[in-house]
Amino acid sequence: MEIFGHPDFDGHEQVVFGSDTAAGLRAIIAIHNTHRGPAMGGCRVFPYAGEAAALRDVLRLSRGMTYKSALAELPVGGGKAVVMANPGRDKTPALLAALGRLIDSLGGRYVTAEDSGTTVADLRTVAQETPHVTGIRERRGLDGGIASGDPSPATAYGVFLGLQVAVAHRLGRGLEGLTVSVQGLGAVGWRLAEQLRAAGARLQVSDIDGERVARAVRELDARPVAPEDIATEPADVLAPCALGGVLNASTVAALRVAVVAGAANNQLDSPAEDEALRRRGILYAPDYAINAGGIIDVAFEHLGDYDAASVRRHIERIPRTLDIIFRRADAEGLPTGTVADRLAEERFRAGAR
Amino acid sequence: MEIFGHPDFDGHEQVVFGSDTAAGLRAIIAIHNTHRGPAMGGCRVFPYAGEAAALRDVLRLSRGMTYKSALAELPVGGGKAVVMANPGRDKTPALLAALGRLIDSLGGRYVTAEDSGTTVADLRTVAQETPHVTGIRERRGLDGGIASGDPSPATAYGVFLGLQVAVAHRLGRGLEGLTVSVQGLGAVGWRLAEQLRAAGARLQVSDIDGERVARAVRELDARPVAPEDIATEPADVLAPCALGGVLNASTVAALRVAVVAGAANNQLDSPAEDEALRRRGILYAPDYAINAGGIIDVAFEHLGDYDAASVRRHIERIPRTLDIIFRRADAEGLPTGTVADRLAEERFRAGAR
Repeated sequence: MEIFGHPDFDGHEQVVFGSDTAAGLRAIIAIHNTHRGPAMGGCRVFPYAGEAAALRDVLRLSRGMTYKSALAELPVGGGKAVVMANPGRDKTPALLAALGRLIDSLGGRYVTAEDSGTTVADLRTVAQETPHVTGIRERRGLDGGIASGDPSPATAYGVFLGLQVAVAHRLGRGLEGLTVSVQGLGAVGWRLAEQLRAAGARLQVSDIDGERVARAVRELDARPVAPEDIATEPADVLAPCALGGVLNASTVAALRVAVVAGAANNQLDSPAEDEALRRRGILYAPDYAINAGGIIDVAFEHLGDYDAASVRRHIERIPRTLDIIFRRADAEGLPTGTVADRLAEERFRAGAR
Repeated sequence: MEIFGHPDFDGHEQVVFGSDTAAGLRAIIAIHNTHRGPAMGGCRVFPYAGEAAALRDVLRLSRGMTYKSALAELPVGGGKAVVMANPGRDKTPALLAALGRLIDSLGGRYVTAEDSGTTVADLRTVAQETPHVTGIRERRGLDGGIASGDPSPATAYGVFLGLQVAVAHRLGRGLEGLTVSVQGLGAVGWRLAEQLRAAGARLQVSDIDGERVARAVRELDARPVAPEDIATEPADVLAPCALGGVLNASTVAALRVAVVAGAANNQLDSPAEDEALRRRGILYAPDYAINAGGIIDVAFEHLGDYDAASVRRHIERIPRTLDIIFRRADAEGLPTGTVADRLAEERFRAGAR
């Protein structure tokens, strides 16, 4: 297990292994790139099988945050933290405090946020030791309600706008009467479905939680689809809003949609699917471009100028970026995921502000 | 190559892998313990065969600095930096500046200093990027001359005092007429020899540089001994002031002295020699206890209250600490190196200030 020589190292600026024996903390913080600003990214708590697994995860996620924030034109860089611990058992106040001191010791080069295995309550404990935490303050969110750092309304709004521009680009039409398959009705998927319905789209939905599906049928006039069938159900648009890896060799071959545009992370199982989608003439809205509303929300909170109108305006740059990607992909004959990466690289290599 | 699971990890607080692709920097900074204060330790530049070798070196050296500074009752902790580079070819201004930025990003938790492969000039370049550098300011040193951060007069003075207390403890006498074998006539060994001679000791000296030996014969009335014979030459005291590892299984068996007290680092080839010396009735002044004058000197420079009188007074605590070690070793039937480690641990676990 090398660090500089790791296949996913990719020029990371810093990889910090932090430990606090008394508190039982073993954490890795990866700072991929700070050209545009402090490295921002969530803190994951997970009982990794070993250091190698934790390192691989943090390096990949950290790099992804650089690309995501750069593409979203935020003045922040990419980083991530992982804690080798069982979130159900090991998250003692002492461990969270030690994590806070570790983050604080980096002097603001890394700013943490919620991720799998951490809650807003956990991050508030962390924030007792360091100011470099975001996504924890109560404020009036995009939907007008009081939000406790929950960025899902912002994410859903960005996906809604991105889906719209993808449909306009590929099908030359609006949402009225469009059929959309929404895969997953969690915090983001549900809000997306609501907005699509309000805009006149017809919904097909799936979720592993039957209650949510039933509610969508009732409240959004949605057609229920089995989770194993939703990806390949005929529709105009597939909106993956559940797990990653939904676009693999077999699903891509079986897709019966013109557009893929949804909130899930890591939708492509491998880079090969990016090209396979292009060859099939399916327009793919790159996941980290379209789902950037959440990072925009927490970045604005951290940058200290949070108000819902500014966040909304910044999220409205997502469809503009997608439009650039779609046009460039057409002009250069490249898959959209590849073009997104290139555009992100141009944006973080140039720096910001 | 694990980090947390590394055999030399020993509860390090942080291990930071820093890289700057443009500047060609790959560095590891290890922060072992900051209970007593910021981690202080030199920065080594060396063309390591690989990351594993660099990591092993930095972890061991960093831990050693915690023990050394704690035993010396300094309000600093232990750390170390290694740069994977060829000091004769790779130390560009860009690399040194990137190193400075990396050190600066740790916000003062690690303070760097000279080590093998770095010069005072290099560290002054580093210091253009960060205030967390010591051993670089010109000031009037212990010997009254203007020193450019060179701590060897301080180291030599501490070894001189430590040797004296070891001789008093083991032989119940002073330095007048005592025979001392000085192995190595570098910056520290030479100054030690001068002080011993001035105190009336008889010197036997060796060095791989014949010029230095000739000068000692001329100026200090020393008897020249071949480098390969000095360790086993009959004398009252052996003062190792050259390479580490001089006390190995075969030399310890062949020693013909009552006391070992010198400036070299890592004099014991392995912990077994600590006990072997005790069994032979040879009093060993633990290397990192007796040679702490240098870290005392650079720590005082960094702590901002440098004046030669204060440094001198702090160095005069070295023989007191050695006396505690010698008495405790006698009382508990333990080797002196083991007792030094335990005393250091008591001191850094308790914290300072």
